[in-house]
Amino acid sequence: MEAKSPKESRTTLTDLVLPSETNPLNNLFGGELLARMDRAASIAARRHSRRIVVTASVNHVAFNKAVPLGSVVTVEAAVSRAFKSSMEIFIDVWVEDRESGNRTKANEAIYTFVAVDETGAPVNVPPLAPETDLEKERYAAALRRKQLSLVLAGKMAPKDATELKALFEQ
Amino acid sequence: MEAKSPKESRTTLTDLVLPSETNPLNNLFGGELLARMDRAASIAARRHSRRIVVTASVNHVAFNKAVPLGSVVTVEAAVSRAFKSSMEIFIDVWVEDRESGNRTKANEAIYTFVAVDETGAPVNVPPLAPETDLEKERYAAALRRKQLSLVLAGKMAPKDATELKALFEQ
Amino acid sequence: MEAKSPKESRTTLTDLVLPSETNPLNNLFGGELLARMDRAASIAARRHSRRIVVTASVNHVAFNKAVPLGSVVTVEAAVSRAFKSSMEIFIDVWVEDRESGNRTKANEAIYTFVAVDETGAPVNVPPLAPETDLEKERYAAALRRKQLSLVLAGKMAPKDATELKALFEQ
Amino acid sequence: MEAKSPKESRTTLTDLVLPSETNPLNNLFGGELLARMDRAASIAARRHSRRIVVTASVNHVAFNKAVPLGSVVTVEAAVSRAFKSSMEIFIDVWVEDRESGNRTKANEAIYTFVAVDETGAPVNVPPLAPETDLEKERYAAALRRKQLSLVLAGKMAPKDATELKALFEQ
Amino acid sequence: MEAKSPKESRTTLTDLVLPSETNPLNNLFGGELLARMDRAASIAARRHSRRIVVTASVNHVAFNKAVPLGSVVTVEAAVSRAFKSSMEIFIDVWVEDRESGNRTKANEAIYTFVAVDETGAPVNVPPLAPETDLEKERYAAALRRKQLSLVLAGKMAPKDATELKALFEQ
Amino acid sequence: MEAKSPKESRTTLTDLVLPSETNPLNNLFGGELLARMDRAASIAARRHSRRIVVTASVNHVAFNKAVPLGSVVTVEAAVSRAFKSSMEIFIDVWVEDRESGNRTKANEAIYTFVAVDETGAPVNVPPLAPETDLEKERYAAALRRKQLSLVLAGKMAPKDATELKALFEQ
Repeated sequence: MEAKSPKESRTTLTDLVLPSETNPLNNLFGGELLARMDRAASIAARRHSRRIVVTASVNHVAFNKAVPLGSVVTVEAAVSRAFKSSMEIFIDVWVEDRESGNRTKANEAIYTFVAVDETGAPVNVPPLAPETDLEKERYAAALRRKQLSLVLAGKMAPKDATELKALFEQ
Repeated sequence: MEAKSPKESRTTLTDLVLPSETNPLNNLFGGELLARMDRAASIAARRHSRRIVVTASVNHVAFNKAVPLGSVVTVEAAVSRAFKSSMEIFIDVWVEDRESGNRTKANEAIYTFVAVDETGAPVNVPPLAPETDLEKERYAAALRRKQLSLVLAGKMAPKDATELKALFEQ
Repeated sequence: MEAKSPKESRTTLTDLVLPSETNPLNNLFGGELLARMDRAASIAARRHSRRIVVTASVNHVAFNKAVPLGSVVTVEAAVSRAFKSSMEIFIDVWVEDRESGNRTKANEAIYTFVAVDETGAPVNVPPLAPETDLEKERYAAALRRKQLSLVLAGKMAPKDATELKALFEQ
Repeated sequence: MEAKSPKESRTTLTDLVLPSETNPLNNLFGGELLARMDRAASIAARRHSRRIVVTASVNHVAFNKAVPLGSVVTVEAAVSRAFKSSMEIFIDVWVEDRESGNRTKANEAIYTFVAVDETGAPVNVPPLAPETDLEKERYAAALRRKQLSLVLAGKMAPKDATELKALFEQ
Repeated sequence: MEAKSPKESRTTLTDLVLPSETNPLNNLFGGELLARMDRAASIAARRHSRRIVVTASVNHVAFNKAVPLGSVVTVEAAVSRAFKSSMEIFIDVWVEDRESGNRTKANEAIYTFVAVDETGAPVNVPPLAPETDLEKERYAAALRRKQLSLVLAGKMAPKDATELKALFEQ
Repeated sequence: MEAKSPKESRTTLTDLVLPSETNPLNNLFGGELLARMDRAASIAARRHSRRIVVTASVNHVAFNKAVPLGSVVTVEAAVSRAFKSSMEIFIDVWVEDRESGNRTKANEAIYTFVAVDETGAPVNVPPLAPETDLEKERYAAALRRKQLSLVLAGKMAPKDATELKALFEQ
């Protein structure tokens, strides 16, 4: 299969924070943001693979910045690396100030999706060809994250996680 | 106030058609699409004006193409002309085929929003400076639509609707 | 097919404005009202045709009056004219003051629905026989609106829109 | 306070059964119907009292007839008797067959609401003056139901429930 | 079929009161609580019968205590008695104070479910073997409630409702 | 502050998978499960701290098992370790087969919450005293996870992550 660039899967979901999505401090519930990111990421994975896709895992997500009721939130998702049948999706979340119009970064998240056929069996997906510096950096880091995930799941011996090990031996 | 270009307010809302939004033929309910377009258009109006905005009217909307369950729908909204305190927002709706990846135009709609202060009183908004040919064409047509809307509401005599009259005298 | 009167399709949807349906000014979102009107209108179209119906278009809708959180909103929809397979539905929206009990008109809207069979192909619907003065007036205006819609869609030459032309030649 | 008739509070909520409201047999969830009836009944109670109202109790509700996905359901609620600050609301639920247009009775339910001020303290409501035979019958039965409810709650000795006792001594 | 104990069907649904579920006093809508109780009760009925279950009726429910926005609400449901194909489910609702951590009883409700096959026809369910004193008390009362329900529905002569009659002859 | 045991914060949310929560394969959307887990975890964090709590981060979550429409899903959350103002919450997700009644593990997830005051500033929380073997194991692992999270966020040098380093030096 021919490689695709991240921009072919880039997905933008700009929407308001509605009253039914907020916690007692009137900020967007963490859980609602996770659900929105999942929908945007699944569209990116679908655009890359043109197959049915299912969420395989969510990497560490940090909620650094509260997102108040009435905010405009932009979720941008794009495939950051493709493996055999799985795709890592990198998601950036931006919040926009109504008065100044400034956008500030609110969150980053990494989801993994698997492409499947109608019976739910995994199918192959095209490789990813990163283009910009940021895309290349995320592409490289994706391998370390995959190793970490395999180690934590007990599916890879820590000593074999060469990319990861290097990190702790510096 | 300084003029803004349409691209400063352009808003993209890409999302899935979920099962709770479909009619007995398993297509997106017209009403749900109207609500999504309203949210995207309100964000565009807010980006142009940096004020609270409220829906003033919806122009004729034609639903030419059914949007099936599970589709990826992209709603793109941008200010097409600004008047004193009101803004016309032009909305394009695209549907994406999962297998081919082709996007086809599903709908067009035109909403009008008014910028208001905290008490709900109208406030002035910046003018719009269209840049591309399509933006200029939509900008010109907006004046005819405004006249038509005033005539239909009985707030302008048909004989004064110069732009509109020309259309029927050709 | 035997003609039906508007009262055979009249549909009343009285419901509360819930917190999840309001904008930053605590008023009902325009988009939510559009979705409610679509549901009521689709029931009216179904009652007239006894077939599956799909939204074909929404005419100009003006939002003249804000509808605050907690209001009681009554949406009344009835067929105003039937064409071959399409039906124009006229919708009146009323808001009720809790203390005085007074109902005031908040909006009017006109939707068009098409009756279809299980495959989505258009099917014929019964004609409409208006009875009251208001029903007759809306019935007559429906033809002008249909011509306007055809002209705007480029499907009728302005010179052939006889009903509409008369309006601008007065 | 001047008495009001049931027709002054009569509330009609006609709406579709949406996919998100159905159980594994594709019928409307009992719980969803209970929630819809609660909204219609609260509007009827509000129209009678013109105050804030809160649900006090729900009487026995029997679900005799399944309501399939895509049905048109009409919930009709009206005050059937007013006590000091509470109101009994009688609710009739009808389901409509799309092809024949026939309406059949699907359910009956009885809710009790209490009128309160902004602090939640009970306030008096106008008495009810039933007009039709059905309204008079429901008005009379409301007293028996109130006694039954007091007996079951241990707030009235069975021997004092004169209306109710008569029922078992026939 | 072998008897089951109530603890085999006990179902706990602890969740927050969200902004979209509250009335103008910022308390949980009665209708929303009825819907939550229906879901928990249906799971309990399913655990007892291991069949598809549908709501047959709701007994008298009193809303004694307002449940404010942001509260933690625990709905506990368990089968209290099984008849041929129907099951009575007893539901206790608790509200938790955030600061003290104290749980207080907010409501009790009794729902009846019927077990059905794929065509909707009733099927037999296992009997219930109550164990604790509270379970035995609820088991005994269930028979009186069933008689009352039959009498009120006109399906049993009051003189034959032996359990119930005893109550009024004390 | 006095230490609390995990069972004091244990929260059980048993609920159905509804049609509006499923993907094109008729399985629960990953994003919906993330939102449910967030609600259950936030209640556990609140029960431990008796304060307002906000989601700080979500650890790696793997979706190993599809959860079909109509399933009964049980989300169990309990505090696994408390730090100064943050709490790690361990979440187990179980799916129940209707016919056999068997529960199988569908997912595990780890969320971190921070306790805050009304202004959003962090406040101290009680320590956790694990009791069972499983609780002690999760308590110990929580420290490694915290170090990993600090390393990945660039807030701790890998060489100082003593607990974590040991893992890769085995």
